[in-house]
Formats: sequence, C-alpha cells, structure tokens
Amino acid sequence: MVIAIPIFEGLTALDAVGPYEVLSRVPHADVRFVASTIGAKRADSGMLGLVADYALEEVPSPDIVVVPGGPNARDIAAHSDLVDWLVQAHRTSQWTTAVCTGSLLLGAAGLLDGCQATSHWLALDELARYGAVPVLDRVVEDPSARIITCAGVSAGIDMALLLAARITVPEVAQAIQLGIEYDPQPPFDCGSPAKAPREIVELVQMSAAHEQGQT
Amino acid sequence: MVIAIPIFEGLTALDAVGPYEVLSRVPHADVRFVASTIGAKRADSGMLGLVADYALEEVPSPDIVVVPGGPNARDIAAHSDLVDWLVQAHRTSQWTTAVCTGSLLLGAAGLLDGCQATSHWLALDELARYGAVPVLDRVVEDPSARIITCAGVSAGIDMALLLAARITVPEVAQAIQLGIEYDPQPPFDCGSPAKAPREIVELVQMSAAHEQGQT
Repeated sequence: MVIAIPIFEGLTALDAVGPYEVLSRVPHADVRFVASTIGAKRADSGMLGLVADYALEEVPSPDIVVVPGGPNARDIAAHSDLVDWLVQAHRTSQWTTAVCTGSLLLGAAGLLDGCQATSHWLALDELARYGAVPVLDRVVEDPSARIITCAGVSAGIDMALLLAARITVPEVAQAIQLGIEYDPQPPFDCGSPAKAPREIVELVQMSAAHEQGQT
Repeated sequence: MVIAIPIFEGLTALDAVGPYEVLSRVPHADVRFVASTIGAKRADSGMLGLVADYALEEVPSPDIVVVPGGPNARDIAAHSDLVDWLVQAHRTSQWTTAVCTGSLLLGAAGLLDGCQATSHWLALDELARYGAVPVLDRVVEDPSARIITCAGVSAGIDMALLLAARITVPEVAQAIQLGIEYDPQPPFDCGSPAKAPREIVELVQMSAAHEQGQT
C-alpha cells in the first residue's frame, strides 16, 4: 500500500504531517514524500524543512495520494509538474485526497469536475472555478470520483482517520486514534468561521489577503 | 521570541509539527528546530525526515522550549546531550514544555521534581520516577515550575494554542486556531483510554509493548 504525499516549497507542514502521522501507522503502509526533486522543502513559514525522499517520477502509481496545501497553492496549481503528476497518478489510485488548499491542485489537474469537494474556508469559493461543487463540511467524500477533500490544515487528521477506516477496518483507525491520543480539547471554540467571533474572522481574512498580496 | 524545538532520530513527527504549526504563526515568533547535529532527522516510522537548522549549542537560551517525544524517548533520556541542553535552557526559558513522551526528557533533566505533569497515557506512570506528580489531563500547566506538558502526539496542538494565548493574548491564539481551521471532528470517539472500547485499548497496549521490546 503505497501512500504518496507530494510536497513543494512553501507547503503548510501540518497539512502533510497530520495525515502522515495517521497513515504511517496503517499496517503495511509505505508512506512516501515525493516532490519535483528529492531533498528538503521549506514550509510556508520558512522555519521548517520536510524531506522528500522520492522524485515524482519514481512514484507514478501510488495507491493513495494526499496533497497538502499552502499559501502559494494557486501558483503551484498554475504551473507545476506536480499537477501533471496528479493527472497521471489519479488514473490508478484508489483514493486521491487533499488537505486545505491542496484541493486547488486537484482542481487544476481536472480531477474535481462535477465533484463534491471542500477546502480551507478562505478558499472554498475558488473550487467552483474547477467545476467542483463546494461543500462546507470538514471532510467531503465523493466515492464515484475516488476523491476525498477536507477543510484547512488540521482537518487532515480527521480525513486521514476516515481514510484509514476505508482502506482497512474501523478498528484499525480507532487504534491509531487512541495511539496518537486524538481526543481534541481546543482551549477555544473558534476553529470555524461559524463559531469564531466576527472580529477574529475579519482578522484572519485581512491577514490572508495581505499574504496573498505578497505572493 | 525564540521558540526551540529540539528533535532527534526516531521522534514522533506530529509531536513537533503540531506545536510548530501553531507557534510559527505567533507574531514575531522565531521557531528553530535544533538537534545535536544540523540536518535531517528521521521520524519513528522511518518514512519522513524533519530538518534541524541549528545545533543545540547555537540556541542556548530560547524563550520557549517544546520537546517532542518518540518511542525511543527512554533511550534519549538515558544518554543524550539533549538532556544536558534542557537543563541549561530551562534556566532562562519563559516556558519549557513537552508533548507526549517528551515529558520523560524533561524528567531526565530533573525539571519535573515536585511538578505536576502529564504524558502519553501509556507513559503516564513513568513520570513518578522523576519525582513528578502525574496528572491524567490533556494539558497540564505548572506555572511555578514554568513547565507545561500534554498528552500524546496530537495533544501538542491543544497545548500550543494554550501557550500562544499565554505568551500573547487570547485573541491571537483564537486567530491561529481559525487559521488552521482547528474545529476537530474525529470520525470516532476513542481518542483516550477512558473512551475507547476495551479491545482497542488492549490492542494499542500490546502493540506498544511489542515496539518497546524491539528498541
């Protein structure tokens, strides 16, 4: 069971490492971090490097694909061999999945046409450009398209547990959840725009707009 | 605000990357992955490398320390320059914190004597060896000791949000939580031994015992 996580300069690290932590614990899983070139890729903050052990062409037909996002996902979607690789990999994958703005890369690869999908709440509207039907939900599964997408960053953990249950049995996913002690107790109840105070939502929107302006 | 995350061969990646993802978003935070030697360290699965940009001696007095754990935390605790570094770093840190079995490294450094602390549920009893008062809670703060510890792996996200609120203001932590869309919705309710079915708890215990036997 080869699980490919394609990474790139500027990715959001937790988008990739959340699902990795879950899926690497699936029995017989062989998780491979792949990229255009082998070696360390810096995360969006510039403060962390994650190592890609494989070049994209070395892993052409993984069983599972998990695409992380990043503030620069739109640039990557516009011109990237990763997008070409996704087109190819999805032909034979069991599930092709994305976390956060990773869904924009699936869209750019033409994989979301007519497909129910989600993304980071700040990027959800953009999915329609790719012919997707945006769904405001934490994890969105479109079995006929073999696509699973999820909300921003931390949602990759929830998605990966669902995926672990799908590709094995629920008991395996439950054991993984207990192993990583995933009994979340956030100190605040403001993890979605529907729950957060309006001034916090506006703060995050402004900050994201500023970041987009810089890239 | 220098935030040091010391890493080592065999660490559990999410222990480090969960808090990193939160704390790197604190305004003016300078998160530094440090290790005995600069370069990539392989995670416990062997399937991912995280890059340490700094040697321990280059970051002797961080403001915040976040120590991840790993299945080999007991070996690291027994003979490691990381433990010596922790002794030194804690003298001037504002907060010294640990995720999962990272608390065993704090214990080995003598930082938990008389201190309320927690760890991964499978390791909680071991804290008493270091003079700590084990507390079965997700995040445990001992302000007089300047120590915060938390439960296994994924608990580092909850801890880091609390820490972000402590070192700034709650609104910053709330904005970060919304930015990473941390509105957890695990597909199962079995993230702690109190909630998981007994057979799942036993499965994870057996698996951990097997892993310990191998290291």
